[in-house]
Amino acid sequence: MCRWLAYSGTPIRLEDLLYRPRYSLIDQSQHSREGVETTNGDGVGVGWYPVDAAGEPALFRAVGPAWSDVNLRELAHATSSPLFLAHIRASTGTPVQQSNCHPFRFQNWLWVHNGSIREFARLKRDLVLAVDPELYPSMAGSTDSEVMFHLAITYGLRDRPVAAVERMAGLIESVAHRHGVPDPLQMTVGTTDGDRIWTFRYSSEGRSRSLYFSTDMTALRALHPELDTLRRLSEETRLIVSEPLGEMEGAWQPVPESSYGIIQQGDDELGRFAPAGP
Amino acid sequence: MCRWLAYSGTPIRLEDLLYRPRYSLIDQSQHSREGVETTNGDGVGVGWYPVDAAGEPALFRAVGPAWSDVNLRELAHATSSPLFLAHIRASTGTPVQQSNCHPFRFQNWLWVHNGSIREFARLKRDLVLAVDPELYPSMAGSTDSEVMFHLAITYGLRDRPVAAVERMAGLIESVAHRHGVPDPLQMTVGTTDGDRIWTFRYSSEGRSRSLYFSTDMTALRALHPELDTLRRLSEETRLIVSEPLGEMEGAWQPVPESSYGIIQQGDDELGRFAPAGP
Amino acid sequence: MCRWLAYSGTPIRLEDLLYRPRYSLIDQSQHSREGVETTNGDGVGVGWYPVDAAGEPALFRAVGPAWSDVNLRELAHATSSPLFLAHIRASTGTPVQQSNCHPFRFQNWLWVHNGSIREFARLKRDLVLAVDPELYPSMAGSTDSEVMFHLAITYGLRDRPVAAVERMAGLIESVAHRHGVPDPLQMTVGTTDGDRIWTFRYSSEGRSRSLYFSTDMTALRALHPELDTLRRLSEETRLIVSEPLGEMEGAWQPVPESSYGIIQQGDDELGRFAPAGP
Amino acid sequence: MCRWLAYSGTPIRLEDLLYRPRYSLIDQSQHSREGVETTNGDGVGVGWYPVDAAGEPALFRAVGPAWSDVNLRELAHATSSPLFLAHIRASTGTPVQQSNCHPFRFQNWLWVHNGSIREFARLKRDLVLAVDPELYPSMAGSTDSEVMFHLAITYGLRDRPVAAVERMAGLIESVAHRHGVPDPLQMTVGTTDGDRIWTFRYSSEGRSRSLYFSTDMTALRALHPELDTLRRLSEETRLIVSEPLGEMEGAWQPVPESSYGIIQQGDDELGRFAPAGP
Repeated sequence: MCRWLAYSGTPIRLEDLLYRPRYSLIDQSQHSREGVETTNGDGVGVGWYPVDAAGEPALFRAVGPAWSDVNLRELAHATSSPLFLAHIRASTGTPVQQSNCHPFRFQNWLWVHNGSIREFARLKRDLVLAVDPELYPSMAGSTDSEVMFHLAITYGLRDRPVAAVERMAGLIESVAHRHGVPDPLQMTVGTTDGDRIWTFRYSSEGRSRSLYFSTDMTALRALHPELDTLRRLSEETRLIVSEPLGEMEGAWQPVPESSYGIIQQGDDELGRFAPAGP
Repeated sequence: MCRWLAYSGTPIRLEDLLYRPRYSLIDQSQHSREGVETTNGDGVGVGWYPVDAAGEPALFRAVGPAWSDVNLRELAHATSSPLFLAHIRASTGTPVQQSNCHPFRFQNWLWVHNGSIREFARLKRDLVLAVDPELYPSMAGSTDSEVMFHLAITYGLRDRPVAAVERMAGLIESVAHRHGVPDPLQMTVGTTDGDRIWTFRYSSEGRSRSLYFSTDMTALRALHPELDTLRRLSEETRLIVSEPLGEMEGAWQPVPESSYGIIQQGDDELGRFAPAGP
Repeated sequence: MCRWLAYSGTPIRLEDLLYRPRYSLIDQSQHSREGVETTNGDGVGVGWYPVDAAGEPALFRAVGPAWSDVNLRELAHATSSPLFLAHIRASTGTPVQQSNCHPFRFQNWLWVHNGSIREFARLKRDLVLAVDPELYPSMAGSTDSEVMFHLAITYGLRDRPVAAVERMAGLIESVAHRHGVPDPLQMTVGTTDGDRIWTFRYSSEGRSRSLYFSTDMTALRALHPELDTLRRLSEETRLIVSEPLGEMEGAWQPVPESSYGIIQQGDDELGRFAPAGP
Repeated sequence: MCRWLAYSGTPIRLEDLLYRPRYSLIDQSQHSREGVETTNGDGVGVGWYPVDAAGEPALFRAVGPAWSDVNLRELAHATSSPLFLAHIRASTGTPVQQSNCHPFRFQNWLWVHNGSIREFARLKRDLVLAVDPELYPSMAGSTDSEVMFHLAITYGLRDRPVAAVERMAGLIESVAHRHGVPDPLQMTVGTTDGDRIWTFRYSSEGRSRSLYFSTDMTALRALHPELDTLRRLSEETRLIVSEPLGEMEGAWQPVPESSYGIIQQGDDELGRFAPAGP
C-alpha cells in the first residue's frame, strides 16, 4: 500500500506540502497512521506541471525511502507548481525500482495509485493482453498500478476519464472472476491531464483505502494560521490526500466509498463509481 | 551490448577471474576492447553454484558500474565456486535496474546474454505472448534477454537446450520478419543447469559479437605463470568469455560464427547453430 | 538508533537468524518494537568470518532498507558462518551511504553500534583529533560509530578491549563536558576479532538502549522446537541482540545497565563497565 | 579525474548545454576525449541558481553514471537558470557516494574541481586541521575537493577569492613538501557566489588538466547555427568547460597554464595564479 497527494491551485513550492505540515507526506513515509503499512519506504515520486508552461509534466522518481532523499528535498525547495501529484510507495511484491515508482506518465497525463490487484502475478498476463498493443511498449515497469493506467488509457481515459476507469475496474473484476480470485481490486487513484484532477475510491469488497479532500480553503486557512503559504492560496485551491496532513480537523472530508471526484475550474464534481461490464 | 564470462572446473575464488587478470571482466566494465561500447557500466551480476551443494544457484546483481561495486569485490573474495556466470551490462535501451541485470535465473538454470533484439519495443508483445503462460509471472524485468530466456524454457531448454534455443531464435526472426524488421537477432548466450554449460554465438546478419573459449588448461597455465590459481585447476576446467582476459595469446579460441558449444564432463562439444522454423 | 545482532557458535546459514525467526532482524528494519525508531531503513550490513578460514571477515553493506534488499537475501541463503555481526541502521543525522553502514572493519576486527553521541557535529573535530594519526586514513565515512571504533583501536582495542572501550567512553564524556554537552554517550556495541565477541551496554544518563543475550542453548531449543536449526547448535553457541528475536521468552537475558560481556570458549564473562579518565 | 562545466548568462534550460550539444557533458561521462579517464561514471551533480531569486542555489547530486540518470534528464528539461555548475565524477579513490559528488555548496557558494591531491590519504589529516573549526562540521564527504573548498573558505574565499585559493594551494604544497610528496596538486576549479564565476587552472608540475572558455557569443552563434538556443543568448553569456562541447572550433580558448579567470558583468578578467606561502 502507498500514500499519495494531489494539489491543484495557486502555484506553491512543493516543500510547503511535502515537508512542512505536521504529518506531511514525507513524514508518512516513516509513520503512516491510516495506511495498511506504517512504513512506505519503497520509493517516492513527484510529477509536476511547470508554472508557466503547458505540455508534459516533469517527473522525479527514486527508489530509496522518501525521508532520506536529499535530491527530493532540494527539488521540493526549488520548484513551484500549480498542479502536482506526489506518491510514496510500499511495494506489494513487485521490485523496488524506479520504473515501478509513481506517478506514471503518458503524454500530458499522470497517474498515482494506492492499493493493489489481488494475485496480480496470476492475472497480469490477461490484463496486459487487454492493453492496446500500441500502448504496450510504453509500460516500462512491472506494477499492477502501471497496467491499470494503461488499461484506462486503452478505454478512453483521455476523452471520458470516469467511464474509462470504470471499464478498467470492470475488466479487472471480470478477469479475476474467471481465475477464481475474489475481491480483486483495491484502489484510490489520482490522475490528471494538467488541467483537471480525477480521483477514484473503490474496492471490490467495499472497504476501500482512505482518501480525503479539502473543499474549503477559507476553513483550511483558519485552521492553519501557522502555515503562511495557505494565506496566499486561491479559493479554487484543492488538495486530495490518502491521509490528512497536520491536524486540520474539520478541513478534511473523506471521499465516500465507491465514488469519484473531479477537481476543476468552477464547481468540483462528486459522483458514484461503479465498475462497467465489458 | 555487454560482456560476460562463464567458468566451469576446479572450485576457484570468483575474484581470481573477475578481478585479478589483466583485462579482467571488471576492467572491461570501463575499458572493453572488443565490445560495441567501451563502457559497460549499466549493472553487473554474478550467479554461482555452491561448492558443496546441489540446487539453485545464488545471485548477486547490482545496478551501478562493476568497477566501483564494493560489495561485489567482497563477495568475489569470500566466495569460491566450481561453476559461475558473470555479466556486465551496457543497456540497449531498457532501464538500468536490478531486475534487468544478468544472470537471469529459473529454478537451477542461469542465463546471460550479450547482444540485442532489434526494435525490441515493437516486437516485444508478440514475443511475450509466445512464452508459456505458466512462465509469464517469472519475468520480472523488461529486457529482451529475459524474454529470450523464457522463450527458450518454453521451447524445452531443460530437456533439449540446443533445439530450444534454435526455436527461440527462429521465433524471433519470424516475428521480426512479420513486422518488417531485418536482421533482428544478435546474441552470444551462456546458460547452465549447474552441471553443463551451453553457449551460443549467432546473429541474423552473420556478424556476431565476439566469443572465446579456453580449451587447454595446460596451455593456459604455461602462458600465465603469474596466476597461481591456474596451477591448481583440473584439466576439465574451462572458461568462456566475450573477450579474452589478460594477454593469453594462443589460449583463446574464437567460438565460430553460428555455432554452439557444450562444456561438460568428458569431451566438450561444438556444433552448428541454425534457427528453427516454428 | 539502530538494531544489531551478533552470533557465535556452530556454523549457521545467515538467513536462519536474519530472516527466519519471528521478529527477525530484517523484520525489525520495518517494525522494531523496542527501538527509539520503529523504522530502521537507512542501510544494512553484515560482516562474517568464513567457515574454514582465518583472517579478515567479509562485508556486505547497502544503503537501502534491509527488508527489500534482494542481494542480502541471496547472500544470507548462500552463506554459512560460525561468527557474524549484522546491523540495520536508522541514521541520527549523518548521510545514508555505504561508508556509514555498519559493521565497520579494521584488519580482523568488526564493530557495530546502536546509539549516538549527542551533538556529534560539534564534538567531532576534537574526537577525531584524538584518533591515532596512523589510523586517520582508514576512517571512510562520517558517523559517530566509526569514530568510536577508531578511538577504541587507538586506545588498545586489539590488546585490552574492555579497557580501550572504557577510555573511548571517557574521552567522549570529557570532550562533551568541555563543550557543555550533557549526557553525551548512548551505546550498545558489539565487536569481535573473529574469535571472541565483546559487547557493551552503556549510556551517560544511565538509561541505555536495550541489549539481550542468550545464555543457554538447551533452553533456546526447548522454546523453539519449530526452528530446526537450533537442534544442531553447540552448547557454546550464543546470540546477542538489540531486541529479542521471536517470542523466546525465558531465553533472553537483558545485558545489565553499564556492563560488558565477553562471549568466548569456556565460560563467558560479564562485568561492570565504567568510562575511564584520560 | 572529472569533467565540469560552468554557465553564466541568459537563462537557459540546463538540457540545452548538458544534453544537446555534440560531445555534451553527459556524452563525456561515457566518452571523454581529453580526460585522463575516458569514463566519468562515478557520479554527477548540478548546482543552479533560480531564474528569479537570490540566495542559496539548489543541488542535484547522484551516484550513478550521468548517462543513465533519468532524474537528471527530467530536471535538466524542466529547469532554466542564469548560472549553474555541472560536474561528472571519476573517483580517484574516495567512495562513490552522494556526499562526494560535486558541486559542493556552502551558503550561496558552489565549487567544482577536476584533479586531485596526490597521496591525499596521507595528507588529509593535516589539511583538515587547517580548516576553520567552525567550518569543520559542514564537510560531509571524504574527497580532497571538499577539503580544498573548505580551506579556501577558511582563507577568505567569500571576500578575496583569488587570494584565498592561492593560499589554499600554497598550504597543500607546503603540507605535501613536509610529507615528502612531490607535485601534489592538480586542479581546475570553478566556484561562484551566484553573481560572478571564478575559475582556476593550476598544477604543481605545471601540466594542468585542460580548461576552456568561450569568450565571444557572436562567434559561438556563427559556428553553431544548429543550436537555436545560442541565438537568444546575451553578449555577456559565457561558458567554461573541461573540454569543448561540440566541434565549436575557434570558439573555445584554453585557459592558460597557472592562471585564473573571472566571469562577471562588464569585462572579464584573466590573471596569473601562484600558490601563496602561509
